[in-house]
Amino acid sequence: MAEINIELIDSMGCDLTVANVARVSFNRWKEELDEGDVGLINYLARHAHTSPFRHTAITLSCKAPVFLARQLGKHQVGLSWNEVSRRYVDAGIEFFVPDNWRSRPDGSVKQGSGGVHSHSEYFSHEYQQFVVRCKDIYDEMIEGGVAPEMARMVLPQSMMVDWVWTGSLTAFFHVWRLRIDNHAQKEAQEFAQKLEEVVQPIFPHSWKALKNG
Amino acid sequence: MAEINIELIDSMGCDLTVANVARVSFNRWKEELDEGDVGLINYLARHAHTSPFRHTAITLSCKAPVFLARQLGKHQVGLSWNEVSRRYVDAGIEFFVPDNWRSRPDGSVKQGSGGVHSHSEYFSHEYQQFVVRCKDIYDEMIEGGVAPEMARMVLPQSMMVDWVWTGSLTAFFHVWRLRIDNHAQKEAQEFAQKLEEVVQPIFPHSWKALKNG
Amino acid sequence: MAEINIELIDSMGCDLTVANVARVSFNRWKEELDEGDVGLINYLARHAHTSPFRHTAITLSCKAPVFLARQLGKHQVGLSWNEVSRRYVDAGIEFFVPDNWRSRPDGSVKQGSGGVHSHSEYFSHEYQQFVVRCKDIYDEMIEGGVAPEMARMVLPQSMMVDWVWTGSLTAFFHVWRLRIDNHAQKEAQEFAQKLEEVVQPIFPHSWKALKNG
Amino acid sequence: MAEINIELIDSMGCDLTVANVARVSFNRWKEELDEGDVGLINYLARHAHTSPFRHTAITLSCKAPVFLARQLGKHQVGLSWNEVSRRYVDAGIEFFVPDNWRSRPDGSVKQGSGGVHSHSEYFSHEYQQFVVRCKDIYDEMIEGGVAPEMARMVLPQSMMVDWVWTGSLTAFFHVWRLRIDNHAQKEAQEFAQKLEEVVQPIFPHSWKALKNG
Repeated sequence: MAEINIELIDSMGCDLTVANVARVSFNRWKEELDEGDVGLINYLARHAHTSPFRHTAITLSCKAPVFLARQLGKHQVGLSWNEVSRRYVDAGIEFFVPDNWRSRPDGSVKQGSGGVHSHSEYFSHEYQQFVVRCKDIYDEMIEGGVAPEMARMVLPQSMMVDWVWTGSLTAFFHVWRLRIDNHAQKEAQEFAQKLEEVVQPIFPHSWKALKNG
Repeated sequence: MAEINIELIDSMGCDLTVANVARVSFNRWKEELDEGDVGLINYLARHAHTSPFRHTAITLSCKAPVFLARQLGKHQVGLSWNEVSRRYVDAGIEFFVPDNWRSRPDGSVKQGSGGVHSHSEYFSHEYQQFVVRCKDIYDEMIEGGVAPEMARMVLPQSMMVDWVWTGSLTAFFHVWRLRIDNHAQKEAQEFAQKLEEVVQPIFPHSWKALKNG
Repeated sequence: MAEINIELIDSMGCDLTVANVARVSFNRWKEELDEGDVGLINYLARHAHTSPFRHTAITLSCKAPVFLARQLGKHQVGLSWNEVSRRYVDAGIEFFVPDNWRSRPDGSVKQGSGGVHSHSEYFSHEYQQFVVRCKDIYDEMIEGGVAPEMARMVLPQSMMVDWVWTGSLTAFFHVWRLRIDNHAQKEAQEFAQKLEEVVQPIFPHSWKALKNG
Repeated sequence: MAEINIELIDSMGCDLTVANVARVSFNRWKEELDEGDVGLINYLARHAHTSPFRHTAITLSCKAPVFLARQLGKHQVGLSWNEVSRRYVDAGIEFFVPDNWRSRPDGSVKQGSGGVHSHSEYFSHEYQQFVVRCKDIYDEMIEGGVAPEMARMVLPQSMMVDWVWTGSLTAFFHVWRLRIDNHAQKEAQEFAQKLEEVVQPIFPHSWKALKNG
């Protein structure tokens, strides 16, 4: 069924922007990236002078389940988020379907999951039936004339959310850094990987510098 | 079952704080509120000089269903939010139970609900059975050793969320103003009313001035 | 001498972006602006649904005196600001020179100035001599080996500041709205006018809708 | 003459607040700090879980010269700032007077000053005369009926600013950490030291934990 997904809609700026902003002076605004600019970018990242990286913008079309969208939505400084409202829209309901089910970790408090559960297939089967039943009761309510803003109460937290997300390179790098961590939920790590695949090519030197910084 | 709820944990400042901050000068910091201070507070609110109202703080313990918590969580400027993480905690699952089910509105695009649905009782019955089944499959997963961060996928968006919320009078007034609107979902309006009941007594003159402003 | 100035460096998005974001769904992302989009933009502005306007970005090169830059710097939500640091850079010092000197307003508490002062020319003369003396003492310190971060203490608040400013249409419209107000300082109003001249052509329908909204 | 100064006006919360918020559950809200709470605070700081520290508030009355106030004003996430406006208030003008004048550093690009300049006394003398002249021309303008919002242009960037500053422990710790750095201007370091003297006694365990974290 539905998968975590990120697509690029638009962007402003490139590695050269970061270097130009760091120099501030409009008179010294360069047209082409050179070695010195790359050195400057590395210097900025290494010394946590992240403000020049903020003069960039990226707009993404994102799709993720509610439980993950709630986590991601906590990042707000420098980010704008617009999503389909289930108060009004009752069409296009999709559910996240995990490849397998992970077991509770033993020991570690910070790890959210252990390995694949030995009965993963059983739970997948149960889950598939469950989401069908959820959709059935939702559809019954909608067809019976219940307000969508109430009917959505029966939709599980694996329901997919579609949103447009805009922010600076700094903001999205911060999202990536926290979610790529191996203590993050596996689904969050997957989102972070896709985020890197989309953003890194637009700002290759800056992304590398921020990762090394 | 569970109800929308707000309890006051702590607060900083009062109406006099707002007037004192507006005067800025520490030498003119008054000890007791007088007529002139009330006049100043009204003036500030009427002319949208809201910055003095920001030098206050309120900490609340809140409880609301996921679908409402997601809306409220969008307010972030000047607000801090900490909630129980269902990645780790599998106890104390509660569901929101509406008093009745509202029908889809006819006509108005902005109104989310019409009146009480003629089959409200039927849907309440269906819903009660539904959440029991959700809890059963969640419990089966948890008892079977599935990681809580995955099992939560089967919990519906009516699941209650508990969080601690801290912000200034300005920030909470803004939440109140947007959610008390009659286009807001009825459950959001209920949250806004409870918010006013908790915050208004701490800053009676300021609250009144902001409402009139 | 130096004047308040704003130049466009880069931007992301246009009126169509606002309409597309409001629709959220990537499947309905249009390529060309039509009547319906303009209607949607007007609807959004009229009902204070400003979030779609945030998925845009504008980078400006700005120049203004310290006293004005300090006011403008208070706007921060959704804005990034990078300026030449006078801790390190001692070259290119410029001063703002007003066309004339305004008198203290009589009566109104909110108005910052009355009309042109009858001795405006005298004060212009005094001021010109004054800034020359400031520059002399600054240069004496710099040439004498005083640290620039200390020598800058003698530079008056009419010193020009150069900065790069990035933010969304929403953020810059907010700056404009507060500073175009006739209670704002005349120099702030001038900045606001120049801001409109730069931003309005990029988002003509949105700017008009926000002004009317 | 005037010195950098910070005085506590009000505060909300203590070390126990941080631990209670981290536990979230209102049922487990403790009344007294114990060993376990201190351990929890250290754990939070060590793992950069800084959100519980945000459910606190501190209001300070601050005084610093313009050039430093401009730096400090850049910290804005979670901070509110209200200052005396020199558009309207022309009384109480004070200037910062450094104990001595530092020379330009040799070599290091990041260090803003070297040691005490060999002619420090000479520059102090020059500076004292300079600020007197600034005040004279300002007074002449004010007495001559020039609008205060214009007359302030002749006030140097060593003019003292008085403001009320409110924010969470997290926000002020962040200010402290950036300004206590030995690359910060000496005056900024002095401000940071005074900030620590005021805030640390209110949250002794949290402050220590954040410093060690």
